[in-house]
Amino acid sequence: MNDAVALPRNALYTQNDLADVPWLDARPGEFPYQRGIHATMYTQRPWTIRQYSGSADAAASNRAYRQALEQGAKGLSVAFDLPTHRGYDSDCADVAADVGMAGVAIDSVEDMKRLFDGIALDEVSVSMTMSGAVLPVLASYIVAAQEAGVEAAQLRGTIQNDILKEFMARNTYIFAPEPSLRIATDVVRYVLEHMPHFNAMSVSGYHLQEAGADGVLELALTLANAREYVSRLVDDGADVERVCAQLSFFFAVGRDFFGEIAKLRAARVLWARLAQSLGACSPRALQLRMHCQTAGSTLSARRVHNNVVRTTVEAMAAVFGGTQSLHTNAWDEALSLPGEAAATLARDTQLILQHEMGLCDVVDPWGGSYLIEALTAQTVAAVEATLADIDAQGGVIAALESGWIDARVHRGAAQMQARTDAGERLVVGANRWHESQPEQSEWLDIDGGLVRAQQADRLRRLKAARDSERVRTALAALSDCARAGSGNLLAATIDAISARATVGECTAALESVWPRWRQPLRVEAQVYAEARDGDAAWQAVRTAVSGWSAARGRKPRMALVKLGQDGHDRGARVIAAALGDAGFEVTLGPLFATAREAAAWIAADEPDLVGVSSLAGAHLSLVSSLIDALRERGSETPVVLGGIVPFAHHAALRACGVAAIFVADTPVDRIVLELLRVLDKAKALTG
Amino acid sequence: MNDAVALPRNALYTQNDLADVPWLDARPGEFPYQRGIHATMYTQRPWTIRQYSGSADAAASNRAYRQALEQGAKGLSVAFDLPTHRGYDSDCADVAADVGMAGVAIDSVEDMKRLFDGIALDEVSVSMTMSGAVLPVLASYIVAAQEAGVEAAQLRGTIQNDILKEFMARNTYIFAPEPSLRIATDVVRYVLEHMPHFNAMSVSGYHLQEAGADGVLELALTLANAREYVSRLVDDGADVERVCAQLSFFFAVGRDFFGEIAKLRAARVLWARLAQSLGACSPRALQLRMHCQTAGSTLSARRVHNNVVRTTVEAMAAVFGGTQSLHTNAWDEALSLPGEAAATLARDTQLILQHEMGLCDVVDPWGGSYLIEALTAQTVAAVEATLADIDAQGGVIAALESGWIDARVHRGAAQMQARTDAGERLVVGANRWHESQPEQSEWLDIDGGLVRAQQADRLRRLKAARDSERVRTALAALSDCARAGSGNLLAATIDAISARATVGECTAALESVWPRWRQPLRVEAQVYAEARDGDAAWQAVRTAVSGWSAARGRKPRMALVKLGQDGHDRGARVIAAALGDAGFEVTLGPLFATAREAAAWIAADEPDLVGVSSLAGAHLSLVSSLIDALRERGSETPVVLGGIVPFAHHAALRACGVAAIFVADTPVDRIVLELLRVLDKAKALTG
Repeated sequence: MNDAVALPRNALYTQNDLADVPWLDARPGEFPYQRGIHATMYTQRPWTIRQYSGSADAAASNRAYRQALEQGAKGLSVAFDLPTHRGYDSDCADVAADVGMAGVAIDSVEDMKRLFDGIALDEVSVSMTMSGAVLPVLASYIVAAQEAGVEAAQLRGTIQNDILKEFMARNTYIFAPEPSLRIATDVVRYVLEHMPHFNAMSVSGYHLQEAGADGVLELALTLANAREYVSRLVDDGADVERVCAQLSFFFAVGRDFFGEIAKLRAARVLWARLAQSLGACSPRALQLRMHCQTAGSTLSARRVHNNVVRTTVEAMAAVFGGTQSLHTNAWDEALSLPGEAAATLARDTQLILQHEMGLCDVVDPWGGSYLIEALTAQTVAAVEATLADIDAQGGVIAALESGWIDARVHRGAAQMQARTDAGERLVVGANRWHESQPEQSEWLDIDGGLVRAQQADRLRRLKAARDSERVRTALAALSDCARAGSGNLLAATIDAISARATVGECTAALESVWPRWRQPLRVEAQVYAEARDGDAAWQAVRTAVSGWSAARGRKPRMALVKLGQDGHDRGARVIAAALGDAGFEVTLGPLFATAREAAAWIAADEPDLVGVSSLAGAHLSLVSSLIDALRERGSETPVVLGGIVPFAHHAALRACGVAAIFVADTPVDRIVLELLRVLDKAKALTG
Repeated sequence: MNDAVALPRNALYTQNDLADVPWLDARPGEFPYQRGIHATMYTQRPWTIRQYSGSADAAASNRAYRQALEQGAKGLSVAFDLPTHRGYDSDCADVAADVGMAGVAIDSVEDMKRLFDGIALDEVSVSMTMSGAVLPVLASYIVAAQEAGVEAAQLRGTIQNDILKEFMARNTYIFAPEPSLRIATDVVRYVLEHMPHFNAMSVSGYHLQEAGADGVLELALTLANAREYVSRLVDDGADVERVCAQLSFFFAVGRDFFGEIAKLRAARVLWARLAQSLGACSPRALQLRMHCQTAGSTLSARRVHNNVVRTTVEAMAAVFGGTQSLHTNAWDEALSLPGEAAATLARDTQLILQHEMGLCDVVDPWGGSYLIEALTAQTVAAVEATLADIDAQGGVIAALESGWIDARVHRGAAQMQARTDAGERLVVGANRWHESQPEQSEWLDIDGGLVRAQQADRLRRLKAARDSERVRTALAALSDCARAGSGNLLAATIDAISARATVGECTAALESVWPRWRQPLRVEAQVYAEARDGDAAWQAVRTAVSGWSAARGRKPRMALVKLGQDGHDRGARVIAAALGDAGFEVTLGPLFATAREAAAWIAADEPDLVGVSSLAGAHLSLVSSLIDALRERGSETPVVLGGIVPFAHHAALRACGVAAIFVADTPVDRIVLELLRVLDKAKALTG
C-alpha cells in the first residue's frame, strides 16, 4: 500500500521473529545503538526542533531567526536561494528569476553578517544546507563569525557538504564529481582542524527518498556516499576517529511508519558496523547522529490541511526512530512556500509531541517490539545486500557514472506515480475521497525584484569599498589552489571572502580551472506503463493519444523544460516517462536554462506543446519570460505548467498565456487528456 | 507532564520488565486478548470509522448520513439533542433553547423514520448515544425499522444504555439510580431476546475521563459499572454468555500516548478475567469490543488548528490499542459544533491512518515492546486495586451514593486545571508558545427557532392524526409496567411509540411513577489550591481577591449557573472550586434550570456576579433570556460567560449585556483578575 515499503512485511510478528536478531540485549547507548545513541534520550532532553527556513534577503531571514530563538528554538537551519547554491551573485542576469525565491540570497560576507546580526554564534548551533557553493558560503560564515569576535573553534552546527547526493538527486552541483569531491574533502579537513564542534558533513538520504528511492535504497546510497568520503579522507591521512565523529546524517521520513522507524534504527546499526570496518572504534565515531525531515513528496496539493496529519505521523516515526533533530514540513508546501500560520503549526506539531503526549517520558519505547526489532534486522540485511550490489558496480562513483543509481531512483518515482494514478497507492483527498475542494488562505509571496535590486546595490557598494588588488590576489590564489591539487580550498576561499570577494567571484575563480558540470536528464521508458499494466483507465488514455497520432500520422510532440536554477527533476522526469509511455514524443530540456536559452532549444525542436516544471517558486517571472521569448521567435506553441504553484497565481499565469496548470497530485490520466484538449484548441486557433 | 498519567513510568524498559507479565505468549485472538480480539486485525479489515454526528432536525441529519454513507462510511453514530436525551418533546417551553442545538431533535417514530429515510437499516450498523431516554428512542428506532420492513432481529448497531456513568459524569439521566437501572436492564433483556446482532449496552468510560478521571480510574469505573449490570441481569436469570457477548465498551483516548495504548490492551485482559469470574467462558463473551473517541478535553480553543495534531496522535493510540471503531474530534470543537471542512479533516485523519501510513499492515505492532507490555500489566494491576477499593466502599452503587466516585473524578479535573494554570501541564499555543492569535473561519450555526417551530408543527399533526385512545391505553400500560416492577419496559414503550405516543409522553408516563432525579453539584475546596501551593502567580491572584475582600469586609460573591439541559458540569465545578480557593464565595446553581428559574435562584442569593457555564451551543438564547429575567427583577448584577463559544458570537453576547467571555483554556488567573475588573466596573457604575 505504500511508497517507501522496500521490504515485505508479515501480518503478524511474535517472539519467534526475534530469534535471529543478534543485538537484542544492547541497551540504549550501547553498540550497535539500535535503541539510540544515548542511554537517556529523550528523557533528559528532547530532540532539537530545527526548522529549515530563510527567504528573500538577509535582513528578512534575520528577523525570522531572531523570532524563532526568542520562542525557544535551540538551533537554526538556513535555506539559501538557488543562485547562492549554484555559486552566482544576485546581480547575475541569468539567474535573476530565482534570487531570494526559495531561500535567502547571500552574495558576500556582508550578507552573512546581516543574516546573523545580533545572534550569538558561539551559543546557537547553525545548520547550513549547502553543498554546491560550500566553499564561499562556509567561508562567509566563518569570516562573519570572526569579525563578530567568535572564533571558528567556537562554532557549533553543521554544513551539509554532501555533493555526491546532488548528482543522484536534486542537481544542486556546480562542478563535475571529481573536483566536487576535492572541494568536499577539503572542507572536511579544514573543519576537523579548526572547528572541533562543527559537523563537517551531513550525509543526506533525504533528497534520495524525495527523488524516488525507497527506505532501503536511501540508506544504502547514503552509507555508500559516507564510505566514499571517509575512505578518501582516511587514505589521504585523516584520522578516522575524527572524520567519523564529525559526520552527521540526514534522512527523510515518509509514509511507511513502521518501515521508517526500523530504517532509522537500522541506520545506526549499519553505521556502527561500517565505521568499525573503516577502522574507527571510539563510541563517538560509531554513533550515528541524524537530522530528519518529514517527506515533502508525501504532501498533497489537494485538501492541503490533510498534510498536518501526514506530517504528524511522519514526525512520530522520526522520534520513535531516535532522531537528534527534526524539521516538520508545513501543510501548504505542496502549493507554495509556507505561510506564517502554517509554519507555526509545523513547529507546534513538534512542541505538542514533545510536551503534551508523553513521548519523551521513555527511552526507545519500541524496544522489544517483535515487529520493529525484526524489521530493523531485516532492513540491516537488505541495506547490506544493496551495498554489495553497489560494490559489484565498482563502487558508488562508478555506479553513479554508469547511470545505475539514477535508473534505480528514477524507476522508484515512476512506479510510485503509476501506482498513485492507478489508485493502488491512496492519497486521501487527492485520488480518493476527493469530494471537496482544496483550500489555501495565505502563502508567502516574495518580491524577487526588490531583493535583486537591493542585492545589486549592496554588491556595487561592496566592490567600490574593497581593496581590489587584495581581492584579485586572493582569487588568483584560489584558482591556483584548485589547479595545483594541493593546499586547502576552504582556507584559500576564506582569504578571498575576507578580502570581500563575492560568492560568484569565488565560484568563477574555480570555474577558470573546472568548467561547470552539466548532466543530462535521463528517462526510462515503460517503467510507468508496466506498473499500470491491465489498468482500463490507462488503456483509455493511451487510446486517446493513439487517436490523435493516427489522425496526424505522428505522435504529439512535447518539449518539457526546467527553467532557472531549480534542479528538482523528479517531477519532470516522471511526467516525461509517463507521457512517453502514453504515446507522446517527449524531449527533456537541459537543466539550468534561462528563458531565452530554453526558447531557442524549444524552437529548434518544433514541438506541439511546451511543458514547464517548476518547484522553486520562480514560476511567475520564468514562465512569462519563456512565453515572451517564444512569441518573439514567432512561436505560438501552447505552454503548460506543472509543479508547486499557489492557486492564487493561476489567474495571472493564464493571463500571460499559460494554457493549463497542473498542481502536485494531478493524475497523469487527467494531464494527458488535458494536453490533448490544449492541442485540439491550438489546432482550432491556428487553423 | 500529562493529564491522564495514572501510573509512574520508568525512563527505560528492558527485557527484565517482562519477567512478571503472565500472558506474553498469547497471540492476537487468544485469551486474555492483550494483543487484540482477532487474530488478523486490522490486516484483513481496518477499524470502523464511526463519526458521531447529528444536528438540527431529522431531515438535515439524514442528508449528512446519506452523504457519509456515499463516501464509504460503514456505520452511523447518532447525536441526539439534549431535550431528547432528557425525555422532552421539542415543543416543551422549558427546553426551548436546547432543541436541535447539540444533536438531532427526535420527538416520535415519525422523526426517526425521517432520520433514516432511504437508509437500509438491515445493512448499516447504527450506534445511538442514548442512556437517559433510552426507552422511547430505542423503541422509535425499532418501530421505524419495522415500518420500513426491517425486523428487530435484523438490526445491527449499539445502544449506549449506560445510565450509571451519567450519575458519575455528564448528568444526562432522567430518573434516580434504581429506576434507571430497571430501565437499562429491561432494555438489555429485550435486546437479548429480539435483537441478536445489536449491542444492548455500551459501557462508557469516555465521559469519565472527560470529567476528570485518569485512565486507571476510567477503566475501573467502567468495569465496575459493567459488573453491576451483568450481575443484576444474571441474578435475574439472564444467560451470562449472552449478556457479555452483547455488551460493548467505549473509551476516551487522551494525551498519554503510551498509557492509553496500554489502557486499551489492559481493558481486554481485565474484561476477559472479569467475564470469566462472572461465569462466562465463550470467546465471544470474554472478548471486549470497544469504540474509542479522541478526548474532547484535550482540544484547545487557542491556535485551534493545533488540535489536528492532538487528534492524530490520540487516534494512533486508539488504533495501536486495538479499537474496533473510532471517532476523531474536529479541530474546532473547543469553539463550536464542527464546521464542514473541520468534520471532513477529522474523517480524513482516520482514512490517512488506514490507507497511507501502513498502520494496518501488521497485527498489534507494539506486541513485545518492553514498555507497552510492562505498562499493560501495570495497568491491569492498578485497575484491579481500584476495583478492590470500590468493593471496600460497598460496591459501585454505594460508592456512587456516598459521593466517593464523584469526589475522585472531580478532584482529577481540579488538579489538572491547577497544573495547567501553573504551567506544569503544557498546552502548546495556550499556556505556552502562545505568541499568535487563535483563528476560526467557519462553524456550524443552528437555527434552533426554526427546528423548534417545525418540530412543534409535526407534533401537532402527529397528535391530530393518531388514535388518542390507543395512545392513552399504551401510556397507561407503560406506567403500570413501571409501577408493577414486572413486565418489560421497552416492550411497553414500543407499543406506545407504535401508537404514535411521543418521546415526551412516554417519559411523562414513567414520571408519574418515578419523579425526575436532581443531583446537587458538589465542589471540593482546597484541591485546586493545594496543586498550586508555592506558585507565585497564584499567590498574587489570591492577594488581589483578598484586597477586594478587605476593602469591603466580605468576600466577592459569585453565583455560577448551568442553564437548560446541558449537564456537562466539569467546567462549572472546576471553576467553582478554583474561584472558591482564590477567595470568592461561590454558589453553584441547580442543573437543568430555565433562565427564569435561574434568575429567581440568583435573586435570592444576591451575588456580586453571575457566571454562566455553557458547553452545548445554546448560549445565545439562554444567556440573553437570563439577562432579561434578571433585569426584569431589577437586578443589574453583571453576567459573565465561559465555555464553548465561537469567537463570532462574542459581539452579540456583549451587545446583550455579557460583561466578559472566557473560552476554553482561559487560565483561572486571568479569569479571576478579569472578574475583579468586572466587579470594579459594576461598582463604579452603581455608585
